[in-house]
Amino acid sequence: MNMPEGRLGRQLEFLFEIDKLKSVLRRTYLLDGSRHENSAEHSWHLTMAVLVLGEYANEDVDMLRVLKMLLVHDIVEVDAGDTFCYDTVGARNKADRETAAADRIFGLLPADTSSELKELWVEFEARVTPEARFGAALDRMMPILHNLATGGRSWRENGVTKAQVLEANAHMGDGSEKLWRTIKDLVNEAASRGELLDTVAP
Amino acid sequence: MNMPEGRLGRQLEFLFEIDKLKSVLRRTYLLDGSRHENSAEHSWHLTMAVLVLGEYANEDVDMLRVLKMLLVHDIVEVDAGDTFCYDTVGARNKADRETAAADRIFGLLPADTSSELKELWVEFEARVTPEARFGAALDRMMPILHNLATGGRSWRENGVTKAQVLEANAHMGDGSEKLWRTIKDLVNEAASRGELLDTVAP
Repeated sequence: MNMPEGRLGRQLEFLFEIDKLKSVLRRTYLLDGSRHENSAEHSWHLTMAVLVLGEYANEDVDMLRVLKMLLVHDIVEVDAGDTFCYDTVGARNKADRETAAADRIFGLLPADTSSELKELWVEFEARVTPEARFGAALDRMMPILHNLATGGRSWRENGVTKAQVLEANAHMGDGSEKLWRTIKDLVNEAASRGELLDTVAP
Repeated sequence: MNMPEGRLGRQLEFLFEIDKLKSVLRRTYLLDGSRHENSAEHSWHLTMAVLVLGEYANEDVDMLRVLKMLLVHDIVEVDAGDTFCYDTVGARNKADRETAAADRIFGLLPADTSSELKELWVEFEARVTPEARFGAALDRMMPILHNLATGGRSWRENGVTKAQVLEANAHMGDGSEKLWRTIKDLVNEAASRGELLDTVAP
């Protein structure tokens, strides 16, 4: 196809580019266990969690802002890939890889939209505003729920311990104390059933 | 896992149920041609189109409402499957199948959220409000763009003609005249390159 000229052409180019997020695979499995989840469908699922669980945010949040933030939060993975939240090696250069990705991918857009979406991503990563804290809480909750519902499959495959889950996701409480309390109880129960390790294997 | 009791339990049950949307396949291919697109990742891509192309709506639209509508618009497909927009046989009982699905799936939620999300779906389907008209325009535009970018692959596989595309998607103009004009030009060009049939094969 011949891409339209000008502003609309840049906007369509961006929409075409982010189609690649549908091929970025996470460690999480679909609930039916049939395959790994990709980051695009994860982003959709997360925004549905906002619509359904918004009442549990610790503070009043601007729902439109939370939704926008979660829709864009993983787009950098088109270049940077998904970094497993228990991967301490990948975490070391994650910020650099993702910043370069944000510059390139959001930079495909006209300047006004490019800035807006990049700022939403920066805000999400910083977890300072109520919207970012609540969005981040849901982002951490969803893969835990998938693990809980599949007998800890991804935890067991990756040797993740209860201590790691409770530590790496503790900031969930900054966004939603109620949801974090529930998740902690469920994780403790799962550990008592042996669905994740109590401590790292020696 | 032991589902929490009460309101939160129902909300999580719903979030688990709609995970199945990630396994509902559409006729459209990913832009890299590697596989068919599923309805969950399509929903995400559509909401990104809202963030990027909102300026082309014919009327002022409430962005939060458009986003919510598009996030829920395909959830009925968990039960009813995806009905190809050029499938006249499937179209006959589509409304009945989808209404039953909406009752069951949104009915998993507490009554207040259940009504809200079901009403958003009904509003989207009716295409009367500016939000629904613009959302529907983008919903029709995305698969056309995927076809345009893949040499009309899904059109050719399904014997879709230029006349069908221009007729079945004409309501795009009710949501965005600018986008519909662009799409019409691109479809005409694609037809002139033989990427979709001019008329139904005899």
